[in-house]
Amino acid sequence: MSDDTAPEVRDLPIGIDAAGTRHETDSMGGIDVPADKYWGAQTQRSLQHFSIGNDKMPVEVYRAYGYVKKAAARVNGAAGRLPAWKADLIEKVAAEVIDGDLDEHFPLYVWQTGSGTQSNMNVNEVISNRAIQLVGGTLGSKDPVHPNDHVNMGQSSNDSFPTAMHIAVVKEFSERLLPAIEALQAAFAANSAKWSDVVKIGRTHLQDATPLTVGQEWSGYARQIEQGIERLKSCMEGLYELALGGTAVGTGLNAPEGFDVEAAAAIAELTGFPFVTAENKFAAQGGLDAMVGASAGLRALAVPLMKIANDIRWLASGPRCGFGELTLPANEPGSSIMPGKVNPTQCEAMVMVCIQVLSEDSCVAFAGSQGNFELNAMRPIIINNVLHSARILGDAAVKLREYCIEGTELHEERIAELLDQSLMLVTALSPVIGYDKASAIAHKANNEGSTLREAALATGYIDAATFDDVVDPHKMIGR
Amino acid sequence: MSDDTAPEVRDLPIGIDAAGTRHETDSMGGIDVPADKYWGAQTQRSLQHFSIGNDKMPVEVYRAYGYVKKAAARVNGAAGRLPAWKADLIEKVAAEVIDGDLDEHFPLYVWQTGSGTQSNMNVNEVISNRAIQLVGGTLGSKDPVHPNDHVNMGQSSNDSFPTAMHIAVVKEFSERLLPAIEALQAAFAANSAKWSDVVKIGRTHLQDATPLTVGQEWSGYARQIEQGIERLKSCMEGLYELALGGTAVGTGLNAPEGFDVEAAAAIAELTGFPFVTAENKFAAQGGLDAMVGASAGLRALAVPLMKIANDIRWLASGPRCGFGELTLPANEPGSSIMPGKVNPTQCEAMVMVCIQVLSEDSCVAFAGSQGNFELNAMRPIIINNVLHSARILGDAAVKLREYCIEGTELHEERIAELLDQSLMLVTALSPVIGYDKASAIAHKANNEGSTLREAALATGYIDAATFDDVVDPHKMIGR
Amino acid sequence: MSDDTAPEVRDLPIGIDAAGTRHETDSMGGIDVPADKYWGAQTQRSLQHFSIGNDKMPVEVYRAYGYVKKAAARVNGAAGRLPAWKADLIEKVAAEVIDGDLDEHFPLYVWQTGSGTQSNMNVNEVISNRAIQLVGGTLGSKDPVHPNDHVNMGQSSNDSFPTAMHIAVVKEFSERLLPAIEALQAAFAANSAKWSDVVKIGRTHLQDATPLTVGQEWSGYARQIEQGIERLKSCMEGLYELALGGTAVGTGLNAPEGFDVEAAAAIAELTGFPFVTAENKFAAQGGLDAMVGASAGLRALAVPLMKIANDIRWLASGPRCGFGELTLPANEPGSSIMPGKVNPTQCEAMVMVCIQVLSEDSCVAFAGSQGNFELNAMRPIIINNVLHSARILGDAAVKLREYCIEGTELHEERIAELLDQSLMLVTALSPVIGYDKASAIAHKANNEGSTLREAALATGYIDAATFDDVVDPHKMIGR
Amino acid sequence: MSDDTAPEVRDLPIGIDAAGTRHETDSMGGIDVPADKYWGAQTQRSLQHFSIGNDKMPVEVYRAYGYVKKAAARVNGAAGRLPAWKADLIEKVAAEVIDGDLDEHFPLYVWQTGSGTQSNMNVNEVISNRAIQLVGGTLGSKDPVHPNDHVNMGQSSNDSFPTAMHIAVVKEFSERLLPAIEALQAAFAANSAKWSDVVKIGRTHLQDATPLTVGQEWSGYARQIEQGIERLKSCMEGLYELALGGTAVGTGLNAPEGFDVEAAAAIAELTGFPFVTAENKFAAQGGLDAMVGASAGLRALAVPLMKIANDIRWLASGPRCGFGELTLPANEPGSSIMPGKVNPTQCEAMVMVCIQVLSEDSCVAFAGSQGNFELNAMRPIIINNVLHSARILGDAAVKLREYCIEGTELHEERIAELLDQSLMLVTALSPVIGYDKASAIAHKANNEGSTLREAALATGYIDAATFDDVVDPHKMIGR
Repeated sequence: MSDDTAPEVRDLPIGIDAAGTRHETDSMGGIDVPADKYWGAQTQRSLQHFSIGNDKMPVEVYRAYGYVKKAAARVNGAAGRLPAWKADLIEKVAAEVIDGDLDEHFPLYVWQTGSGTQSNMNVNEVISNRAIQLVGGTLGSKDPVHPNDHVNMGQSSNDSFPTAMHIAVVKEFSERLLPAIEALQAAFAANSAKWSDVVKIGRTHLQDATPLTVGQEWSGYARQIEQGIERLKSCMEGLYELALGGTAVGTGLNAPEGFDVEAAAAIAELTGFPFVTAENKFAAQGGLDAMVGASAGLRALAVPLMKIANDIRWLASGPRCGFGELTLPANEPGSSIMPGKVNPTQCEAMVMVCIQVLSEDSCVAFAGSQGNFELNAMRPIIINNVLHSARILGDAAVKLREYCIEGTELHEERIAELLDQSLMLVTALSPVIGYDKASAIAHKANNEGSTLREAALATGYIDAATFDDVVDPHKMIGR
Repeated sequence: MSDDTAPEVRDLPIGIDAAGTRHETDSMGGIDVPADKYWGAQTQRSLQHFSIGNDKMPVEVYRAYGYVKKAAARVNGAAGRLPAWKADLIEKVAAEVIDGDLDEHFPLYVWQTGSGTQSNMNVNEVISNRAIQLVGGTLGSKDPVHPNDHVNMGQSSNDSFPTAMHIAVVKEFSERLLPAIEALQAAFAANSAKWSDVVKIGRTHLQDATPLTVGQEWSGYARQIEQGIERLKSCMEGLYELALGGTAVGTGLNAPEGFDVEAAAAIAELTGFPFVTAENKFAAQGGLDAMVGASAGLRALAVPLMKIANDIRWLASGPRCGFGELTLPANEPGSSIMPGKVNPTQCEAMVMVCIQVLSEDSCVAFAGSQGNFELNAMRPIIINNVLHSARILGDAAVKLREYCIEGTELHEERIAELLDQSLMLVTALSPVIGYDKASAIAHKANNEGSTLREAALATGYIDAATFDDVVDPHKMIGR
Repeated sequence: MSDDTAPEVRDLPIGIDAAGTRHETDSMGGIDVPADKYWGAQTQRSLQHFSIGNDKMPVEVYRAYGYVKKAAARVNGAAGRLPAWKADLIEKVAAEVIDGDLDEHFPLYVWQTGSGTQSNMNVNEVISNRAIQLVGGTLGSKDPVHPNDHVNMGQSSNDSFPTAMHIAVVKEFSERLLPAIEALQAAFAANSAKWSDVVKIGRTHLQDATPLTVGQEWSGYARQIEQGIERLKSCMEGLYELALGGTAVGTGLNAPEGFDVEAAAAIAELTGFPFVTAENKFAAQGGLDAMVGASAGLRALAVPLMKIANDIRWLASGPRCGFGELTLPANEPGSSIMPGKVNPTQCEAMVMVCIQVLSEDSCVAFAGSQGNFELNAMRPIIINNVLHSARILGDAAVKLREYCIEGTELHEERIAELLDQSLMLVTALSPVIGYDKASAIAHKANNEGSTLREAALATGYIDAATFDDVVDPHKMIGR
Repeated sequence: MSDDTAPEVRDLPIGIDAAGTRHETDSMGGIDVPADKYWGAQTQRSLQHFSIGNDKMPVEVYRAYGYVKKAAARVNGAAGRLPAWKADLIEKVAAEVIDGDLDEHFPLYVWQTGSGTQSNMNVNEVISNRAIQLVGGTLGSKDPVHPNDHVNMGQSSNDSFPTAMHIAVVKEFSERLLPAIEALQAAFAANSAKWSDVVKIGRTHLQDATPLTVGQEWSGYARQIEQGIERLKSCMEGLYELALGGTAVGTGLNAPEGFDVEAAAAIAELTGFPFVTAENKFAAQGGLDAMVGASAGLRALAVPLMKIANDIRWLASGPRCGFGELTLPANEPGSSIMPGKVNPTQCEAMVMVCIQVLSEDSCVAFAGSQGNFELNAMRPIIINNVLHSARILGDAAVKLREYCIEGTELHEERIAELLDQSLMLVTALSPVIGYDKASAIAHKANNEGSTLREAALATGYIDAATFDDVVDPHKMIGR
């Protein structure tokens, strides 16, 4: 078709009403593809050569790529490099990609070329054919919208794929993970407030220590998560720099001057996130350091969440032969053989998710170190692990909040009973009678099985009135 | 139904012809499940409480569980604990599970209870309802086949789940992974034999070293993989010990004497693998050490495969500005912007798979360390990672062999050219004139850009005839 | 001694002029310690119980503890909790600790109590005895300076040890690691500037790609390191929050109101770093999240440094049978058998260091997840790994810069030769004749072994003049 | 000196009576070394170029190298390649290396050349100069014993260093680690036997489960460790294959035919371990897979030891507000602020050691994957991590046994009290009244805070006599 005359763009629903196969071509020659799919020859080759496991390139990558293609078309159209109608047409289809309407036309596996080129070409081919369909052209003809010359104009996989990675992660973190974690954090904070007056025994080294309130203990949980959120946000900073415009090796060959800045601005406008072009494209394409940095943000959440989930299941251990301070919601039967057993399953799921996240974070760092020259060819493994970790961590946070934290109750009788028994209230005597005498009292009580008060008075180191005044757990919980 | 009279077992295809929901119950009360699914209340609860990410418990676990249930029914039937007809009925349905015919009725997520109880109950419920269907009973009635009392008879999740884990891994390793790796190993060995006469420059520290044949280099690859296979097999040994019979905490409560030995024998007979009962059930249930050990076998393959895949892509680097010794098959276009570019994509995919396997292996070890008391509640994460790693490693081996190794060709002209230029042939002079003089010759040639022969003769340390006799790469490649 | 009268403080050099042993006591009873050492009973017990490997608690921890003890004494003295002369005395000895003058009196192993209590007591005991010595008291008498009641006043190991960890890491990062990395970064930037005009072939997927300048390539290295520095600094933020004042479980029991704020201010003043008291002590003591976060900063350096070190050794591979673009300094003979061989040993050392740092970072994250209740008892392993990683990374950066980067030279002849041969200059034709025709030209040249120009003209897709104008590597390197 | 006449070998103690420096030379030129040290120019260069951190190449490597040099000299002497007197002389000095008498002359850092060449040359230089000293020659003259031509005869670092690695690890594992672990295992087994009659509550998911004996629980620990020992031994198998004889790239250039077999046999004889020559030297030098495999054996111990150490500290938690079933030895005061506190410090140290071992194992696997062509240049990092892990694991096992396991006591009163309270004894009712009714009883007891017996009888599902007969924990612990 001629570029000069804008063809009519029809209002066609997504889908190709055809059966069997269609012949598509690329520089390697021809190949048959399923007739009802938009993808072309390069996608089909990848499908055949890389059907490894069941791991598919996450749809979030393709949707993010929709922004890349839309932004590039807009900039190229505005500059007259593409006829306006063609830019508009690409933008229209890219919007369908963004909305997920073309998800099923992106079938490729994670374990493919390390640059993500095959997924980029998948996007290029799908947009090309969908655009061709909309203007009544011949699928596979690459006319009037060519996958490389038009959809990929001014781009390389080497700059566009990491750009799509950054967009996908920023969106996943911002729109799914962070809201889930923030809600969980709020649930911890709410419990902390609710239980601010309940004094309990503290524990260090798993051993009885000095008292604190349940509210204080949970304020620690809330604060750890809050700081994790802050760390995640800080770790995301590098993601706002985009490689787009560096093309093949970072020099920007075949991209016009200013394309990088304009494309990043367009992406920022389309997504609502503060994306800018990367200061140095060689760094942005030779390394994936911003992704490794972002992954550290996931770890910053997983580390405290694992600790907290463990604390909760230990504090709920029992019901009769453990710590027994907390009662977790009984969501489901816990045992196929032990009737009536209820287990801290949400905590267990969270612990497993956190271990997985820690491992995937190590995976990302390992892969991040394996770049060579002008490309780190470990992109698919990195984006897949980061998105996967973000997804399971966010979902697990939702479930933990809904099915555990919000329904957790205190076993106050048990908490009080344990507090009464503890010997470590002796610590309050230390400033009064010195560490050494206080120590002797504690050992005496432990050895004799007596109460702290009995042992203290028996030593004669302190009188009853002073003891009762000083050894009051409610005075030991700080300000 | 009465246990005394065997009901007629109908010949019904799998499937429930019903729409909407069905009411099912467990000790927590009632809940609606999809009417066209066999699962019951506990499965449904898990689905609601644990929809975390997209990670589903691998079907291999359920199929392995089929063997467990079949074996248990057989042993229980033979001992008269179950009426023969009921044991037969459970065996019949268990066979359907083994064959994968009921796969879609096992919808649960990986991130669930750490014991795998929910997946065990999923199996119990599905077998119960399918059996009930076959004898014309009421789905959800648990009569005449009760999920706990009959399908789970003599078992706990705590012993049956690790048993299913072992079976699943033994089968995956033996039937899918090992054949794939062995075929890859054979492809390397074939290339080694084919290229046994081609002398090339060796490289250590990435620097030119003394020569060897291409066949020798590839014999190293073949041998590394062969030893990896041996290590994997050795690492699998522990998997043949089964926990079944330990029930809840390893004591075997509610399992009759001898059940463990008989059930393991039945599983061995059914699967054809040499399973036996574990000597100590407390170890087998409190730890998952055999799984961690098996995972080390995956790593034993991934480590050399990563090295080898890297070697191949480096040796194929170029085509004109790299080592250029190998020509890999041109399977697909390599670049969206650089026309005609072909990349070592199969090697890249293998490298990424190996990194993933190494990370998942660390994950398994981490999780393996997190057991408490009579249960390691990290089972789902461990089985999922081990099966996933085995799967992607096996598939990647198939693809690498088919689309890369079998089609790799030597660029013999380039190989000869590089060999001629090398200075490290000087090493052969060392026994003749000593290390120090040989060293001086090499430095001289390097500094002056001359050939080794020119430099050697110029020093006067050696005459031309001796040089030509000694410095012959074809004499340097050993016996 | 009486608190009311300040004893004379003598001007005694460090050291105890005694042989054999001295009897010291703690709440467990008495024990002999070496007479020429300042430490007391608890240190001695730890030495006996925990002599595991050769890993000693790093001296940086003790020196940092000097600041803690000095600050606490100052605050306690100012508030009148300690007599001024006693506070001054403790401050005086703490200054000796800070200066490293007492290093040899801190003999404990890393693998000790998880809270670091034994190292805290080591500090308390040493300061106590040194102070006693200075006022002519009896070593081991704890009079007039008691290790617990005075040196440890208002503190617990549980708040003071993580405080010392933060101080030690801030100092190590700021005073040793960052200067080393910044100097390395500058060396990369200098080489980038020096080689800004040398055009070379780019490489992606290890395959020839479009050209760039050597200066651009090295600007990418410089920028990656610069961003790593920024990430490290960002990751250090959490370290400025100190736990001190939380005492045993975070409530601040036995520490007076305001002690936390005042002690942090004193530490800030003494060290010159912006330390403040942690907002929530339960989070600061139950977790070690700030340390895990700081470790991610080390990883942010190791990941790009590994890539860069690998690039350099590959680019220097040869001298005749590799890429050969760089010539590294010949620092030492490379082989015990191959005369004249020179290897990229500084790069190898850096690569190994980076792998070690990545592993230790994973170790830190793992340990960070293993806290329980009011204490993460994994402190020694965490501080030891973080300080170790920082140390070897900093030292390796110094060596790499001094013995490799600063002396690296270009092999310009080789660079030009490779550039001339490359086929990927064809990319510049793509906007002119389209991707498909450009692709055909590249394949033709590769198959026929011809130059790109020959192949291009033979196809008739382009005329010679246009070809020569467009396919000019010097025009392909961007703006 | 002439080779024909054997010089007199003097009986000189180790040591050089000289001050200042001595001039030494290598192919790079001359350099000053400390006059009182035996090392030469290449060692000195390495010291200057690689002083990174404080990590020194472990002495075990050098002592193992002593066997390599001794064996090579013996084989070369027997074949007449070395004069008998020279071979004997080298053997004599190598024996001093084996005995550790020359340890202080091996000063090099871990972070050096990836092949270990500098440490090999360190050995060669030290043996050369010590031998020269013994025959009255001139230090540094390399006459009559040349470091390369004689001490290194028939060897390369590329084959000798991995040989030394294997020897060092086999000795460390066999002579230090395994005895320590076996003694620990025996201590667990002894406690298991001692406590075989004490019935206690079991716990799964941290929740009360069915009972078992303390002896059974500890038999699980003993068995896990026993299996770990078996795994370690299995993982060591690959270490018995030695690379020696492959020389520079695996072809055996400059080593005479049969040297590999003979040298391995000599090493086997000298060490008493069943070493043989590696079947394929290209695999043995291009990879370090046997080392990665051996490291998996360390992990096989660390994983169960971490679980067990955790179990013990949880079971000892309290003394009054935790599980409190075990009383651990009170080795030292636990807190600087809480008087009388005693902590499970040996368990904490073991847990930290296990985490370190797991991390170092990952490090080894990572490094193992980073080989290229005919050399894996990650040897120093691998040997250092494996030896370090083995050392700390062995030492920690000794300490844990001596200061914790052997002194652990049961708190039988507490154990009995918990057993009485448990609801999970209900499991024994399941075969009698079915899972569903048993479940209802357990829930009723839990909700009402009643005993299991009270709840059971109240439901009417079972009569008192049957209940008392069935629900007897002593009948629930298996055979």
